[in-house]
Amino acid sequence: MTAQIRIGIVGYGNLGRGVEAAIDRSSDMQLVGVYTRRDPATVETRDPEIAVYRMDVLTEHTNDIDVLILCGGSKNDLPAQSPELATRFNIVDSFDTHARIPEHFAAVDAPARTAGTTALISAGWDPGMFSLNRVFGEALLPDGDTYTFWGRGLSQGHSDAIRRVAGVAGGVQYTVPSETAIAAVRAGDRPELTTRQKHTRDCFVVLDDGADADATRQAIVSMPDYFADYDTTVTFITAEELARDHSAMPHGGFVIRSGVTGDGATQTVEYSLTLGSNPEFTASVLVAYARAVHRMSIAGQVGAYTVYDIAPGLLSPKSPEQLRAELL
Amino acid sequence: MTAQIRIGIVGYGNLGRGVEAAIDRSSDMQLVGVYTRRDPATVETRDPEIAVYRMDVLTEHTNDIDVLILCGGSKNDLPAQSPELATRFNIVDSFDTHARIPEHFAAVDAPARTAGTTALISAGWDPGMFSLNRVFGEALLPDGDTYTFWGRGLSQGHSDAIRRVAGVAGGVQYTVPSETAIAAVRAGDRPELTTRQKHTRDCFVVLDDGADADATRQAIVSMPDYFADYDTTVTFITAEELARDHSAMPHGGFVIRSGVTGDGATQTVEYSLTLGSNPEFTASVLVAYARAVHRMSIAGQVGAYTVYDIAPGLLSPKSPEQLRAELL
Repeated sequence: MTAQIRIGIVGYGNLGRGVEAAIDRSSDMQLVGVYTRRDPATVETRDPEIAVYRMDVLTEHTNDIDVLILCGGSKNDLPAQSPELATRFNIVDSFDTHARIPEHFAAVDAPARTAGTTALISAGWDPGMFSLNRVFGEALLPDGDTYTFWGRGLSQGHSDAIRRVAGVAGGVQYTVPSETAIAAVRAGDRPELTTRQKHTRDCFVVLDDGADADATRQAIVSMPDYFADYDTTVTFITAEELARDHSAMPHGGFVIRSGVTGDGATQTVEYSLTLGSNPEFTASVLVAYARAVHRMSIAGQVGAYTVYDIAPGLLSPKSPEQLRAELL
Repeated sequence: MTAQIRIGIVGYGNLGRGVEAAIDRSSDMQLVGVYTRRDPATVETRDPEIAVYRMDVLTEHTNDIDVLILCGGSKNDLPAQSPELATRFNIVDSFDTHARIPEHFAAVDAPARTAGTTALISAGWDPGMFSLNRVFGEALLPDGDTYTFWGRGLSQGHSDAIRRVAGVAGGVQYTVPSETAIAAVRAGDRPELTTRQKHTRDCFVVLDDGADADATRQAIVSMPDYFADYDTTVTFITAEELARDHSAMPHGGFVIRSGVTGDGATQTVEYSLTLGSNPEFTASVLVAYARAVHRMSIAGQVGAYTVYDIAPGLLSPKSPEQLRAELL
């Protein structure tokens, strides 16, 4: 057996925890350690044997790590961390602010090229696997339309928005794709769908003592950007119900390409995810792409990349010969 | 606009016809001509303006063609044609005899390396897009099981087998995936499925005048390799019904990976195709991969490749910058 790929995790929330778990299921990888801005003594890893270090020792570990998986947030962590860490390490991140991807790519590409490192940005499932399927769909069926639906799944951003409303003690929001819209797309009808027609939003909310239910509901459903453009349902529940029924982080969705070929034959391609745990699946994608990044680094491919640039076979621990014989 | 990619089609059956149609929908490509072993005067192309040539003039067109798309069969045509044509041309083929892919790869790789050409073998949807999804599924969810279901779709091989039975004047066979099996897989049950549990086979048969229906049915359902291991239904129809209701070539299927992450969260990834025309979709895949082959040839990547080796972004006419900005 060849040497294992040595991985470091930067940031240890739900995503970092998922990466730890995914590495544990990958026999060709080993986890060197978790790097955190918190006091390492306060970080409880899944496996208590895993070393937890302060971020500032990372530079001392340059020779011990093949790929760093960055598990921070896209808003405050990755815009600074990815360019900085790419000066010393091969990295994988899950930067998911779609509109700022070109900017983030450029910010990572320059230091990675200078340093001779390999950096994959925006891996995960959207951006990530869904992005791949949008490109495959468009390339295979140029005369067609692509539809992305999300859910049913817990949206962290919308749940945070609910919790900022006056009168709300706690709550979660599920994004729910419209069955009617999906059925029309699958049938090849290529409908034009408004935002409201594609998804609904289901909120489960715990009220503060004495808060007015109707006023709170109104404040939620009328919130611009987050809820105003959607049909939003608010269900009030107890704190116990919230903890008992809404602690998991399921998610998923669909990318559907529907088009025509020849004299009008309808062709439909669908990629769908049903995820029991959103962060654990995202983490699994990051770990598989870390394998690809390690191989590309060995091959001398430096600079920033996205999932569009990565040959799929590089994700598998199997050799090209094995893949051709067993899976093609 | 940069120069169009110049494509030649070798072999003009349903697949070659589909490739012609797909090139017509690809503004960055032009069709140089169709090359055939038949008398060119007898070949009716979709667009009558398309030049049809005898195979033996192909060597004179070496400098006029960027990529040849080979549309012959895997049994008798491609094993000889792909290695031979790779000595002069970049090629794409749809070699689909799964068990012989390693052998075919080796037979194409050697002449392609010697000649400095780029050759993609076994593109299409299975092998092809389904193969990609088997590798993605396994790489992302190492603790899981992969299921491939085919259909509902017309199987050419099984239809041919029916037509060889005594008493049969004509007929078609549809492969039908089991809804029960698919539901169990989607639910994350990771069932062990026998051949009989995964698919059924529906046959529509026109009897010869005076043929015995029961004896013919029995001969079909008991045929080894093709039908004996399946629950097979035989429906007798008229020649008019066969022509009216069974001339299309629909197909499709599902690749489902179901696995667990972390402490046991169920994760399911599904890729499905619903194809109004099987040969036209296969042709669309070949054409998109011809674009990738052209780019790889320009980049100096020579030898044989499979879909596992091709970065997905190379399939799209859009630039990497566009893909990152628009689709990631």
